[in-house]
Amino acid sequence: MAIASTAAGLVRAYDLTELSINGLSIKEKPLQELRSSEVRVKLHAVSLNYRDLMMVKGAYNPRLRLPMTPCSDGAGEVVEVGSEVKKWKVGDRVMATFMPGWISGRLTEAAGRSALGGGGTGMLAESVVLSEEGFVKIPDHLSFEEAATLPCAAVTAWHSLVEAGGLKAGQTVLTLGTGGVSVFAIQLALLSGAEVIATSSSDEKLERLKKMGVHKLINYKTTPDWSKAVQQMTGGNGVDHVVEVGGAGTLDQSMKACAHAGRIGVIGVLAGGQGELNTRFILMKNLLIQGIFVGSREMFENMNAAISTHKLKPVIDKVFDFADAQKAWQHLESGAHFGKVVIRLK
Amino acid sequence: MAIASTAAGLVRAYDLTELSINGLSIKEKPLQELRSSEVRVKLHAVSLNYRDLMMVKGAYNPRLRLPMTPCSDGAGEVVEVGSEVKKWKVGDRVMATFMPGWISGRLTEAAGRSALGGGGTGMLAESVVLSEEGFVKIPDHLSFEEAATLPCAAVTAWHSLVEAGGLKAGQTVLTLGTGGVSVFAIQLALLSGAEVIATSSSDEKLERLKKMGVHKLINYKTTPDWSKAVQQMTGGNGVDHVVEVGGAGTLDQSMKACAHAGRIGVIGVLAGGQGELNTRFILMKNLLIQGIFVGSREMFENMNAAISTHKLKPVIDKVFDFADAQKAWQHLESGAHFGKVVIRLK
Amino acid sequence: MAIASTAAGLVRAYDLTELSINGLSIKEKPLQELRSSEVRVKLHAVSLNYRDLMMVKGAYNPRLRLPMTPCSDGAGEVVEVGSEVKKWKVGDRVMATFMPGWISGRLTEAAGRSALGGGGTGMLAESVVLSEEGFVKIPDHLSFEEAATLPCAAVTAWHSLVEAGGLKAGQTVLTLGTGGVSVFAIQLALLSGAEVIATSSSDEKLERLKKMGVHKLINYKTTPDWSKAVQQMTGGNGVDHVVEVGGAGTLDQSMKACAHAGRIGVIGVLAGGQGELNTRFILMKNLLIQGIFVGSREMFENMNAAISTHKLKPVIDKVFDFADAQKAWQHLESGAHFGKVVIRLK
Amino acid sequence: MAIASTAAGLVRAYDLTELSINGLSIKEKPLQELRSSEVRVKLHAVSLNYRDLMMVKGAYNPRLRLPMTPCSDGAGEVVEVGSEVKKWKVGDRVMATFMPGWISGRLTEAAGRSALGGGGTGMLAESVVLSEEGFVKIPDHLSFEEAATLPCAAVTAWHSLVEAGGLKAGQTVLTLGTGGVSVFAIQLALLSGAEVIATSSSDEKLERLKKMGVHKLINYKTTPDWSKAVQQMTGGNGVDHVVEVGGAGTLDQSMKACAHAGRIGVIGVLAGGQGELNTRFILMKNLLIQGIFVGSREMFENMNAAISTHKLKPVIDKVFDFADAQKAWQHLESGAHFGKVVIRLK
Repeated sequence: MAIASTAAGLVRAYDLTELSINGLSIKEKPLQELRSSEVRVKLHAVSLNYRDLMMVKGAYNPRLRLPMTPCSDGAGEVVEVGSEVKKWKVGDRVMATFMPGWISGRLTEAAGRSALGGGGTGMLAESVVLSEEGFVKIPDHLSFEEAATLPCAAVTAWHSLVEAGGLKAGQTVLTLGTGGVSVFAIQLALLSGAEVIATSSSDEKLERLKKMGVHKLINYKTTPDWSKAVQQMTGGNGVDHVVEVGGAGTLDQSMKACAHAGRIGVIGVLAGGQGELNTRFILMKNLLIQGIFVGSREMFENMNAAISTHKLKPVIDKVFDFADAQKAWQHLESGAHFGKVVIRLK
Repeated sequence: MAIASTAAGLVRAYDLTELSINGLSIKEKPLQELRSSEVRVKLHAVSLNYRDLMMVKGAYNPRLRLPMTPCSDGAGEVVEVGSEVKKWKVGDRVMATFMPGWISGRLTEAAGRSALGGGGTGMLAESVVLSEEGFVKIPDHLSFEEAATLPCAAVTAWHSLVEAGGLKAGQTVLTLGTGGVSVFAIQLALLSGAEVIATSSSDEKLERLKKMGVHKLINYKTTPDWSKAVQQMTGGNGVDHVVEVGGAGTLDQSMKACAHAGRIGVIGVLAGGQGELNTRFILMKNLLIQGIFVGSREMFENMNAAISTHKLKPVIDKVFDFADAQKAWQHLESGAHFGKVVIRLK
Repeated sequence: MAIASTAAGLVRAYDLTELSINGLSIKEKPLQELRSSEVRVKLHAVSLNYRDLMMVKGAYNPRLRLPMTPCSDGAGEVVEVGSEVKKWKVGDRVMATFMPGWISGRLTEAAGRSALGGGGTGMLAESVVLSEEGFVKIPDHLSFEEAATLPCAAVTAWHSLVEAGGLKAGQTVLTLGTGGVSVFAIQLALLSGAEVIATSSSDEKLERLKKMGVHKLINYKTTPDWSKAVQQMTGGNGVDHVVEVGGAGTLDQSMKACAHAGRIGVIGVLAGGQGELNTRFILMKNLLIQGIFVGSREMFENMNAAISTHKLKPVIDKVFDFADAQKAWQHLESGAHFGKVVIRLK
Repeated sequence: MAIASTAAGLVRAYDLTELSINGLSIKEKPLQELRSSEVRVKLHAVSLNYRDLMMVKGAYNPRLRLPMTPCSDGAGEVVEVGSEVKKWKVGDRVMATFMPGWISGRLTEAAGRSALGGGGTGMLAESVVLSEEGFVKIPDHLSFEEAATLPCAAVTAWHSLVEAGGLKAGQTVLTLGTGGVSVFAIQLALLSGAEVIATSSSDEKLERLKKMGVHKLINYKTTPDWSKAVQQMTGGNGVDHVVEVGGAGTLDQSMKACAHAGRIGVIGVLAGGQGELNTRFILMKNLLIQGIFVGSREMFENMNAAISTHKLKPVIDKVFDFADAQKAWQHLESGAHFGKVVIRLK
C-alpha cells in the first residue's frame, strides 16, 4: 500500500518556517508510526480557512512555534488502521474533525488543544495519522474537494445556527459577506427553512446569493447603515440570528439588526481584536452573544445528515494544486473569493 | 356593519342537542355583548378535527353538557372591538387560537380549560366573541378556508416537531396516515429540512405524498410490520421523531421504529383508550414520549412565520357549505380524506 | 374602603420634576379610574434598584419626559378589582411584575415598553392601577418590605442563573459585589446547590457573605487581578456562570474567570456604557454572554416557588419612610448598602 | 505490583453458570492483557442494582449467554496503565462508568452495548481492564464502598432529574420507595433545592426519609390511592417530576400525580413488563415520559461536582464480603433494603 509518493517511507508536507505566506514550503518527512487506535489517511484535498491565513502570518497564536504544518481541513481515504481500530477500514472516505478530541457534549480545554493545523498535526500533507475518533464519513454525493471544505467553516455555521441557536423554520438569519462560513450559513439556513438576509460589498456576489435562494440582499458598501436596512426589511422586528464573522467592525450593527432575544454567533478568526459590546442593546433586547469555536464530532455528523438529505454541494471558489499552496493563500488573502479555497493533492 | 345574516341582533350557530352527527342543527342566538377587552369576529370558514367527531359522538368528554356549539378552528375578520382592545381593528383577518388562554410558556390547567368547541365558545357560528389575546393574524397568502385549517392540526404538528422536538434539518420524521395532523407534520417537516417517511393504507395516497416530496413511503396495509420497514429504510438506526396519531394500535410499532433517544409526540384525540408502553424500548433506547395538546399562541405565531416564508398551502380535502355541516362530519367519519375538511360560511 | 390617605379621591405619589435626587417630591393626584380588567393595589413597600438611581439622574433614558413617578418594585394589597378580573380579590397580597406585559415566553418589544417606573406607571405611590395580569402573589412567609425587594433584582438573578443559565447543582457561580442583584444571585445559587465565589471590596461584607454560606471569597480591592484568583480557586477550570453587574470595568475579567462554555449574564443598569468584548476568550472558550432584562411573570412565579420552599428571606439593608425617599436614594448612591434599600408606606 | 490475590497471574471473579442466585461462584481466571489505551483497576467495592438481580435470574436479557461475570458498579484503584493512557496513573481512585462507551451527547446503540455486567466485562472481580475513557475520579470525601454505589443508581437519578429534567429549585419531585435510585433521587433533588414527596410502604422508612429532609411523606400501603394524596399535598397542581421506578404497577398513578407539563423518568429495570399509557392524561396535561438508561460519563462528572460540593454521602444499607456475594443478592431480593447493597473486596 504505497502512500508516500516520493521515496519509500517518506511523506511530503508543507512546513511553515517563517511567519509569512512565503514561509511555506514542501518538506519530506519520515512516515509516522501508527499506534493501535490510530488511522492513517491519505489526503486528497485540503481547504483553507481565514484561520490558516492568520496562522501563517503569526496573527492567530502569538506563541506559535515553527516549523509547523498548517491547515485543519482535509479529506481523503483510509490507507492503514491500527490493531484496535473498530470504526474504519482501508478504503473508507473520511474527513478529519477540526478538534479530534471533541467528540460531543461541552467544549473542554483539552478538546480545544486538539485543534489541527495550530502547531500539532496539520493537514497540508500527503498523509496524516490521527485517532480513529477524529474522523467522520464523507457523504456519498461529495467529492474529496467538496468534503475538504466542511470541517471548519461548515461545522462552525451549523453549530452557531442549529446546535447552539436552535434555528426554526420561519426564523430570520443575517449573514455578512461571502466567505466560507457565511456561504455555508446561508446554505444551511435555507435548507432549515429560515428566511435569509445576506450582505456583500459586491452586486455581482449579491446576484449569486440571490440565485442561491437568499431572500433579501444588502450591499453594505452602498448601504453602510445596513442594520437599519435589516430592521426595515423585517418590519422593525430585527433578525433572530446573526452569523457574525466581522468582529469589531460589525458587531455593533449586528446587535442593532437583532430582534428581541436574538442570537449572535461570534465566529472564529475574523472577529479579531476587540469588539465593542453595546450594553444598551444587549440588555434591553435580551440579546445572546455566543462564541462559536467550530464544533464537536457529533455536531459534524448531525450536519452531514442534513447535507446528505439535501445533496447540498459546498461552494468552491477555486482549486489549487499542492505545489501551488502559496497561491491558494494569496487568493484567500485577496478577499476576492466566494465560498471556499481548496488545495488538491493528486 | 351587519354581522348577523338573519334578523338584526341574531347570530346563527350550530348546536349539538344530542350525541350524534344528526344531533347537529342551526340555531339563532342573540348577539353576545362585547366586553372592553374582547373582539367580535365574523367567521368565513371553519375546519373539522377528529376531536370534533369524537365530541359530537360523546367520545371526547364523558361529562359534556348539551346543547353546545362545536368546533375549535375558525378564520374570519374582525367586525367589532371592545373599548380597550389594542391588538386588532375592524377588518383584520384573524384565526382564533385553540386555547385562547394559552399565550406562551408552560401549559396550565386554566389554559387547558379555555379550549374552544368543547362546551364553551364554539366556532361553528356566524360570529364569535373572544378576548383580543385569543387571535392571531392570518398569513397574507392564505384564504379564509386555508387559514381555518391551522389552529388545531397544524399547531399540534408544529408543537410536536419543532417546539417540543427541536427538529433539525437532516433528522428523520415518521408520520402515520393522511389525516390533518399528519399531512401538516409532513409539510412542516419538509420545510424544516427533515427526511420524511410516511405511511398510508392506500397506494393512491402514497402517490400524492410522494409528489409532496416525502422521501420514503410505506403501505401499512401491505406491510403490517411497518416498523421493520422503517428500520431498514434508516439503515437500522430508526427515526428521530414520530408524530403518533394512532394511539393504542400503533404506539408499540412507533417505539420500535425509533432511533436511540428518539421522540414520539402523542397527538390529540386519535390516541384513544390506553396505549401499551413497552418498557424495554423506552428504557434501553432512552425514548421520549410526550403528550402534545395543540399549542400556545406563541407557537402558532412561530409557525405562521414558517408558513409565510414558504408560502405553504394547507391541503384541503373538501369544502362544505354551512348548511351541510352534517355532511362534513360524515365525510370526516368515513376516513377517506387526505388533509383537512372545511366548512365555508358565505 | 379608603385607599387615599389624604383627601377623598386623592393619591399621594412621588414625582420627579428635574433630573436629580432633589427633584423628587410628593404630589397629590386624582384617583385613577379602574378599567374592567384592572386591579387597584394599595402599596405598603417599595424597593429601589440602581436603575431608579440612574433614572432620576437622567442616565437611564435620555428621552425621559418629566414629571414621572419613579420605581418599578412594590408590594401591597388589592383594594379594588375591575368587573372582569378573575385572578385577584380584595385583600390579596401581591407584588407587581417589573414588566406587566411580559407574561411568559420570549421578550417582545411591547413587553419591554411595559416596564414600570420608566415614564409610565411608577410604584412610589400610595396606590397603583395595573392589569390583573401584572401581579404575582406574595409568598406567605414574606412581609411587604421583603416582598418589595423581589420584582427587579431577584427576578433578574433568577432569570440569569436558572431560566437562561440552566444552573445545575455542583456548578460554580461567580458574583460581583453586594448590591441587590448579587446578593439575590448568591442566595438563589446556594439554594440551587451551586458552589458560589463572591467578590467584595470590603472584608466586613465578605465576612457576612461567608456567614450566608458563600464557599469562596475574594476582596477585589486587595486582589485586583481577581479573575486569576477565581481560576486558582477552581483548579484552573474557571466558573460556569457569572452574574455580571459591573459592566465595562469588569467584563474582561469576568470572561477570564469563566470555564469553557461558561455563561455570563449581563445584568441591567450597572453595565453602563460600552463593554469590551475580548474575542479571543469568547471564541476559544465558547463563552455565552446574554443580556438579562429582568424576566417574565412565569419566571417570577417559578422563583417564588423556590423562595417559598426554602423560606428564603431577602437581605434588606435599610428601610426608609415614605417621606424620606430622597434619603433612600442618597443611601443607594453611597454604595454602602448590602442587599436592598426599601421605602415603607405606612 | 501484585494485583492477583491468589496465584501469580490469576484473578478471582464471580461467574454465573446457571440462572439463579445459587448459580454464582468464584472462579480463577488468567490476568487479561492490557492494550495501549487501557487501564487495569483493582476493585475494592462493588454495589448491586436491581438489574443485577434480574440478570442472574434471567429476567433482564433472554439471550444472556453463560457463564458471565455480573455487576456494573465498582470502585477501586488504578494498578496498571497502557502505554498510551493519558488520563490516569497508578494509584488513582476511580469508578467505572456503567457504559464505558457513552462519553457524552446522545445515547447510541454502540454505547448501549458497552454496558458492564451484562455479558461482557463484569465488575464482581478482583480486577478489571477497561478503556481509559471508561472511568471517572472518585470524589475525595467518599470511601470505595460509597463510591461503588454511584455508577448506575445515582447517575440514573441525576440524569432523570437534572440532565433530562432540567430540575429547578422550588419544583416538586415525587419518588417511589427506598431503593437505590429513589434514595439518590431524594438526595440529589434536595441538594438541588427541590421540594420532595416520597412514598414507602413502611412508616419506619418514612421516618428515616423525614430525617433526610424529605418534605412530604406518603405510606402507599395505608394510602393506596397515593396519587390523590400527592394532588392534595400540592394544592391540586401535581408534581413537576416523578422518578418512576415502579413500572406497570405505578405508572398510571404517577401520571395522575403529575402537574401539567410534568415529566416522568421511567427508570431502568424495575419498570418490568408493560406499562399502561393513559392517553387522556398524557395528552391533556402535555406529560413527558422519558426512558432513562443510566447516563453518560459527562453526566456522571457533572453529578460528582454536586456530590463533592455538598459532601453528599450515599446511603449504604449493608456491606457484604466478597465471599458472601450470594447473601448480598438474597438481601436485595428481600426488598428490605434502604439504599444500596455493597460487596467489599479486601
